[in-house]
Amino acid sequence: MTAHNIAVIPGDGIGTEVTPEGVRALQAAAERFNLDLTFEDFDFASCDYYLAHGQMLPDDWKATLSRFDAIFFGAVGLPDKVPDHISLWGSLLQFRREFDQYINLRPCKLMPGIKSPLADRQPGDIDFYVVRENTEGEYSSIGGKIFEGTERETVMQETVMTRTGVDRVLKYAFELAKKRPRGKLTSATKSNGISITMPYWDERVKAMHTAYPEVDVDQFHIDILTANFVLHPDWFDVVVASNLFGDILSDLGPACTGTIGVAPSANINPEGKFPSLFEPVHGSAPDIAGQGIANPIGQIWCGAMMLDHLGHEDAGKAMLDAIESVLAKADTNVLTPDLKGQGTTRDLAQAIIEAI
Amino acid sequence: MTAHNIAVIPGDGIGTEVTPEGVRALQAAAERFNLDLTFEDFDFASCDYYLAHGQMLPDDWKATLSRFDAIFFGAVGLPDKVPDHISLWGSLLQFRREFDQYINLRPCKLMPGIKSPLADRQPGDIDFYVVRENTEGEYSSIGGKIFEGTERETVMQETVMTRTGVDRVLKYAFELAKKRPRGKLTSATKSNGISITMPYWDERVKAMHTAYPEVDVDQFHIDILTANFVLHPDWFDVVVASNLFGDILSDLGPACTGTIGVAPSANINPEGKFPSLFEPVHGSAPDIAGQGIANPIGQIWCGAMMLDHLGHEDAGKAMLDAIESVLAKADTNVLTPDLKGQGTTRDLAQAIIEAI
Ligand SMILES: CC(C)[C@H](C(=O)O)[C@@H](O)C(=O)O
Ligand SMILES: CC(C)[C@H](C(=O)O)[C@@H](O)C(=O)O
Repeated sequence: MTAHNIAVIPGDGIGTEVTPEGVRALQAAAERFNLDLTFEDFDFASCDYYLAHGQMLPDDWKATLSRFDAIFFGAVGLPDKVPDHISLWGSLLQFRREFDQYINLRPCKLMPGIKSPLADRQPGDIDFYVVRENTEGEYSSIGGKIFEGTERETVMQETVMTRTGVDRVLKYAFELAKKRPRGKLTSATKSNGISITMPYWDERVKAMHTAYPEVDVDQFHIDILTANFVLHPDWFDVVVASNLFGDILSDLGPACTGTIGVAPSANINPEGKFPSLFEPVHGSAPDIAGQGIANPIGQIWCGAMMLDHLGHEDAGKAMLDAIESVLAKADTNVLTPDLKGQGTTRDLAQAIIEAI
Repeated sequence: MTAHNIAVIPGDGIGTEVTPEGVRALQAAAERFNLDLTFEDFDFASCDYYLAHGQMLPDDWKATLSRFDAIFFGAVGLPDKVPDHISLWGSLLQFRREFDQYINLRPCKLMPGIKSPLADRQPGDIDFYVVRENTEGEYSSIGGKIFEGTERETVMQETVMTRTGVDRVLKYAFELAKKRPRGKLTSATKSNGISITMPYWDERVKAMHTAYPEVDVDQFHIDILTANFVLHPDWFDVVVASNLFGDILSDLGPACTGTIGVAPSANINPEGKFPSLFEPVHGSAPDIAGQGIANPIGQIWCGAMMLDHLGHEDAGKAMLDAIESVLAKADTNVLTPDLKGQGTTRDLAQAIIEAI
């Protein structure tokens, strides 16, 4: 029986309501599959912590969290209290960079009982992954402002891509595509407009393809690619993209499947040198926080991805199957208001836990 | 009777098939509204021109085209013959920059008889404009590569925003929003991730808003904004965005209305110091070029926008009304194959011309 230490960071808003349910679901899966999971809670990486301490994280956060096998994260950010660029750059984006979580992986999947905004699509029609580069590219902090406060005021910000950074995300995406039934990889580019970094991205895709001749590769410019997510979501299997393009596609994808409120997201350091972090796509949702009605599925689905990552794919699959079976039953006493039910966070989580 | 000189640049692929029909439709509108339009054709800004001359444009293109009141453009780019970054940066992006066409304006409108990929949306539900900054931002040519060919290889590209550049596109967007019935403006940002240029964009939106207190302003990060185009397209009235974000949104918007093959795009120099350029959103479509079956609506709709811009809003409206009335009739003998009909480019154009 392998033991895994999990750091739990609820963060802000509904993060504090859904993480405990996610932990309970993980405990249920651990019991069924005989896994040894231990959990420890942390209050940092939240806006309350920032207001009390003047920083989002304690000085020794890196040493503290490095002891864990994974981080189970809720949501961070309360723009009315702390500006986003402080709360996010001071926490989530620190983790991604300092723990070299260079893969951001998000499934886009039509689920039973969840209405897609697209016409005439059924579960099974849409099922793909977005693999996003998570440490460099358009999210660099290099740049600045000149002639401040005058008519000549100019701001600049550098996009930075390294061969190491690009190649390792491409490698991960090719490996994933190789394992998928259709073996297909789509690259997001914009080399017709962004004339330096994007042609470089294309060049590295070509180079990496030679090592994976069995993977079927195509590419689209990001503008038409977003259009194709809406028009032809069935075309996609694995989509690989730079940091910014991946950010966009991994919100748009779940929007097309109607799952943006329930989709998970994994920030992965594939080598396991540092802990990986699992967080729902939804934010802290201050508008519904405190009412106990937040949908816990995103957090539980994160748990499933975390177990996959820790090498327990059977347990991860059981958690996802439990989610799908509860959704398929469509019991409005159990479903939360976002799914047109009258259930609470606890009700819906409980139903899923029983199904596990 | 005001006279207008129009430069016609068919470009590549289906561009050469749809521009003549667009010109015929404009002539019909000119006749009905008693306008004096003259047209002159140019063969440059095409890949054939490039293959013959080693450049996309003649040396004196700027002087030549400056004599015109507007440019009526087809489509450029044939990636099998000439790489996109040559054909596009050597033509369209030159025009935008050298003629200071700092506004790219695209309508997103559900049209009768055109199926939207979104469930349960009717004509009238979606009707907004994307206003894109068209000269600076993420499309700068500043940057380069270092340590080429080694493991340390790194590429950089600068995003550049100037106060002049940002303020003038915001001003245009606020003015447009002020004239629209709902008076609403949405700003596309990403200040939670792109930490220098995007907070600057937000700051300028706030500053410009003080001059337009009657306009109702909101903002979304680009990731969730693309999601909202799919989930809540009815929320939008005028959306203003940087060059890259505007590029994405102005493909995604028409995709959501099912009009990506028929939507127009205007590259505008609002002061009229230089000619503005009108081009359909669709590309040169090499796969169907030469068959006479390309849909001419995008090109004709461009004509309508061009007449609006030249101050003939009644004539522009008549052209758009003619398009809508032909679409509403849904005569499959007239509609082109992309609209599930058996008509040719000429058939569909002819029906619209008769309606004008
Ligand atoms: C062809 C390309 C450079 C161009 C752009 O990105 O601006 C196109 O997508 C557009 O929107 O007109
Ligand atoms: C909050 C924000 C900085 C973040 C990002 O853009 O990376 C978020 O959108 C995400 O996708 O995790």
